Amino acid sequence: MNKYKIVSLVLAFALLATLVRLVYVSQSEGQPAAAESKASVVFQNILNRKSVRAYADRKVTREQLDTLLRAAMAAPTGRDMRPWKFVVVDDTAALSALAGQLPYAKMLPQAAAAVVVCGDLSVTDDQGKPSTNWTFDCSAATENLLLVAEAMGLGAVWTGVYPYDERVQAVSQALSLPEHIVPLNLIPIGYPEGNPTPKDKYNSDNIHFNAW
Amino acid sequence: MNKYKIVSLVLAFALLATLVRLVYVSQSEGQPAAAESKASVVFQNILNRKSVRAYADRKVTREQLDTLLRAAMAAPTGRDMRPWKFVVVDDTAALSALAGQLPYAKMLPQAAAAVVVCGDLSVTDDQGKPSTNWTFDCSAATENLLLVAEAMGLGAVWTGVYPYDERVQAVSQALSLPEHIVPLNLIPIGYPEGNPTPKDKYNSDNIHFNAW
Repeated sequence: MNKYKIVSLVLAFALLATLVRLVYVSQSEGQPAAAESKASVVFQNILNRKSVRAYADRKVTREQLDTLLRAAMAAPTGRDMRPWKFVVVDDTAALSALAGQLPYAKMLPQAAAAVVVCGDLSVTDDQGKPSTNWTFDCSAATENLLLVAEAMGLGAVWTGVYPYDERVQAVSQALSLPEHIVPLNLIPIGYPEGNPTPKDKYNSDNIHFNAW
Repeated sequence: MNKYKIVSLVLAFALLATLVRLVYVSQSEGQPAAAESKASVVFQNILNRKSVRAYADRKVTREQLDTLLRAAMAAPTGRDMRPWKFVVVDDTAALSALAGQLPYAKMLPQAAAAVVVCGDLSVTDDQGKPSTNWTFDCSAATENLLLVAEAMGLGAVWTGVYPYDERVQAVSQALSLPEHIVPLNLIPIGYPEGNPTPKDKYNSDNIHFNAW
């Protein structure tokens, strides 16, 4: 047998094996596996979200904050009214001023930024009616924001403002909010300090089937 | 030149090209890309969520529904009170009975299932106080449920129940809910029929920086 005939045979086998491997690797990136992992990534991110109250000394950019707000504004709202406004606080003096007014948000000066999610009571539907359920809509928007923060490696925590009068007044005054803008919550945001872990809150006793 | 020499050369080039492609494909599955894409997958899923009101004739399993409820129960709650209960309706007769009571949920018999997210007014904190803000907590839980449904290829829509007395009564009666369980909403779930598309609701006018 010619020596090049042997080389050809060996090369042909090697090529075949490499092609098989390539097809296998490519398929593992294919449609069904990708669909599976998309659901898994979203689900795991929801389970991994935790309240983060201590922050590293590291900046969060306005571009990152814009991503959080894009997520927030993708939430569903009753009668598609979108009765929300957002105040981003990323000025050190403004964060300290807010913290001074809010005894329960002492971690604010350590945060890189905060988002105040507000209801806009001046928004009306096509029949001129204001939103009945702006707190539900703004809560769903807040959850979107918290989930994207988690996915981006940021830490955040929902601190309640509405319906507590003294907190609503303190935040409204610190941010010069007009009367029709009601702060629902204040979300400090930053890179997590330490290793905060999520809670497992699943409880099958909370589930009923087809009737109580 | 020997013909096997030519074959060997051609095979050697083909093998080299395939190996280069294999290395490239394998590297594109690597670590940094995965971290980047996690945030992107979560963000895109939030943007892709839409209200789905028409469903294909296809079952949704109890395992899938359990995943939705695990996501719901991972939401944050005020003072960690978890003031929620969930009624899963996946019996055809029960879905039809509910639809009969709810003029605005006529699509229910076409859905594979529905989840009724309820507040539990009997849950109290360590000082014996009931939840002030169970509607916020249940709204965040609902958003988690809707997001995982989207990620799993399912379609769902938030239909409001609370605070509308006649709807609360209709759902409570259909599901035999006790007095302390208040249905916040009813979420029909199924595989989407047709091609529902998400809304782009981003509006930079909704964002203020450091003060109004």
